Amino acid sequence: MSAGRHSGPLPPGSTIGILGGGQLGRMTAVAAAELGYRCHIYDPTADGPASQVAASTVAAWDDGEALDRFANAVDVVTYEFENVPVETVERLLDRVPVRPGPMALSVAQSRVEEKSFARHCGLDTAAFWGVRSLDDLAQALTVVGMPSILKTNRFGYDGKGQVTIGMDTDLRHAWDELASDDGILERRIPFEREVSVIVARGVDGATVCFPVTENEHVDGILRRSLAPAPLDAEVADAARQAAVTLATELDVVGLLAVELFIEQGRILVNEIAPRPHNSGHWTQDGAAASQFEQLVRAVVGLPLAPADALFETEMINLIGADADAWRELAAEPGAKLHLYGKAETRPGRKMGHVNRRRKPFGV
Amino acid sequence: MSAGRHSGPLPPGSTIGILGGGQLGRMTAVAAAELGYRCHIYDPTADGPASQVAASTVAAWDDGEALDRFANAVDVVTYEFENVPVETVERLLDRVPVRPGPMALSVAQSRVEEKSFARHCGLDTAAFWGVRSLDDLAQALTVVGMPSILKTNRFGYDGKGQVTIGMDTDLRHAWDELASDDGILERRIPFEREVSVIVARGVDGATVCFPVTENEHVDGILRRSLAPAPLDAEVADAARQAAVTLATELDVVGLLAVELFIEQGRILVNEIAPRPHNSGHWTQDGAAASQFEQLVRAVVGLPLAPADALFETEMINLIGADADAWRELAAEPGAKLHLYGKAETRPGRKMGHVNRRRKPFGV
Repeated sequence: MSAGRHSGPLPPGSTIGILGGGQLGRMTAVAAAELGYRCHIYDPTADGPASQVAASTVAAWDDGEALDRFANAVDVVTYEFENVPVETVERLLDRVPVRPGPMALSVAQSRVEEKSFARHCGLDTAAFWGVRSLDDLAQALTVVGMPSILKTNRFGYDGKGQVTIGMDTDLRHAWDELASDDGILERRIPFEREVSVIVARGVDGATVCFPVTENEHVDGILRRSLAPAPLDAEVADAARQAAVTLATELDVVGLLAVELFIEQGRILVNEIAPRPHNSGHWTQDGAAASQFEQLVRAVVGLPLAPADALFETEMINLIGADADAWRELAAEPGAKLHLYGKAETRPGRKMGHVNRRRKPFGV
Repeated sequence: MSAGRHSGPLPPGSTIGILGGGQLGRMTAVAAAELGYRCHIYDPTADGPASQVAASTVAAWDDGEALDRFANAVDVVTYEFENVPVETVERLLDRVPVRPGPMALSVAQSRVEEKSFARHCGLDTAAFWGVRSLDDLAQALTVVGMPSILKTNRFGYDGKGQVTIGMDTDLRHAWDELASDDGILERRIPFEREVSVIVARGVDGATVCFPVTENEHVDGILRRSLAPAPLDAEVADAARQAAVTLATELDVVGLLAVELFIEQGRILVNEIAPRPHNSGHWTQDGAAASQFEQLVRAVVGLPLAPADALFETEMINLIGADADAWRELAAEPGAKLHLYGKAETRPGRKMGHVNRRRKPFGV
């Protein structure tokens, strides 16, 4: 099947390179296969979840020769986590399109940059201040106020690298606990809801948002999502508009996930991720298209799919030993079980998820 | 994740061996990955659709050493087409369970046997007669009547190896055209509808039927399915009951697809296939579980999933050059496009399919 015109979509049979071999890469590769595309995983670690369902290269992020071979073997590249070094993406860009591009990746790698970017776009965030020393921390507290949270600026995920700061916190102790000289102090928001929006943006700049999802975190790890979130229409529209604005300003081709706090009708941008997002897993069983299909469509240049909710859907993450209940979950009528093929169960490790369709939506 | 008891289901992370590397194997492997299982494809041909999404062995059906290595590398074996030699399955059975077993495979490989088996089970079929010579053919016509169809008894698919016999047919010419000395003469039925039922049967003998599907063939190839079929409840129940009876009598663990003619409220068994079936592809987007998920559940010993229709769904096969319309199909809102990763388009070759959800079902 040929593409016909040079600038058109990549034809089925083309190969999508995916940087990162975890569960997001696995589910993207499965969605690509359904549309007739091949995938090739690049990851420093062997036998991850994604390499079970696609070709793979095991090599370091800075292995130039391996990157060049990978670039020659694929037709477009995307990434499934945002801590891929920007230099890796820049080297690939000499040979092959990388979608989303390095700007979205770079901004998403720094909490300070992502919040600054959101404000640059006219969106609200909690008060924040970059912190590079104990002296900075004292200064930051006068700007940000309390209660607040001291976080690593980079490489934090699932609540790792976070210290709460209150009236009785020993600042030196908190700074030592951070164990990084690149931090951010953020005001803790007494939010009513934590929600997220995933927007897809195509090569042509068209955007399609998935319904807003409400999220519950436990110990910093997403535990449960409910979609569509029970929000006022105006608030939901504003949340979707924030995601569209950020994706457009970052010139994303692919997905942008935006985590937001809702506080008295105000929307505050918390984090962004230019990739599939755990809070979008419900779309596999509850929406007209999954976030993974949408990512594939965006990066190969196909039109985006409608992304409406078909069912009110609850997603429960299976974390660590939760997945030991696979037998019971597989026996639960109507529960859609997704497991990631991880051989070893570890506390806090995302092993899979379950989607429960609660009722038809909008019928 | 351990199975706990020896006789329980294979735990996620186990490997399902699949004999045959075509699109049915590909879609089974994708469904297995979603549930956390690995797959290993065995096929004499390299780089088929399934080997793009799973580990694979390329070896002949009678390569004993390769079969032994394959058996040692997997935890259970299933097959995606019914022309796998029974001897291949019997060799594997020394080392690993094969589901469905050799009886279902053997019966499904012969039109004479499958129709005889259906009658043995108390089900109706069109009149038929085994034909091994031109003399047999003349004899068969006196039993079967006209119009009738002379078919190869084995290895026929998608309308290949079929000759229509009417009042003005030259029998010698028809016999020569068959080009086989193992034939079957079947009465041509003036059926009102052609339908199929796919039933899953678990290790414990439990059965779950998918809704009855109505099928339209063009030139002997399935062109379109509509599910659930618009049938009287009694006729639909009888069709499902026929499938359950056949699966149970054949001791199937896995799927059994049964093609049926409906003629004035009577149900006539036409063909059976102990594997996923083209007429069940709509279940990927229209049912509570897909036929591929159901096959995986059956062969690893998990409980079967509910198989209700969620949407009235139309499935259109993309045959040969039909798939060149991938760009338009991908742009059609709500059309779910499935392509099989076949590099070469050939006339009559199944390249993919499209599922269209027409409306919520039962709401």
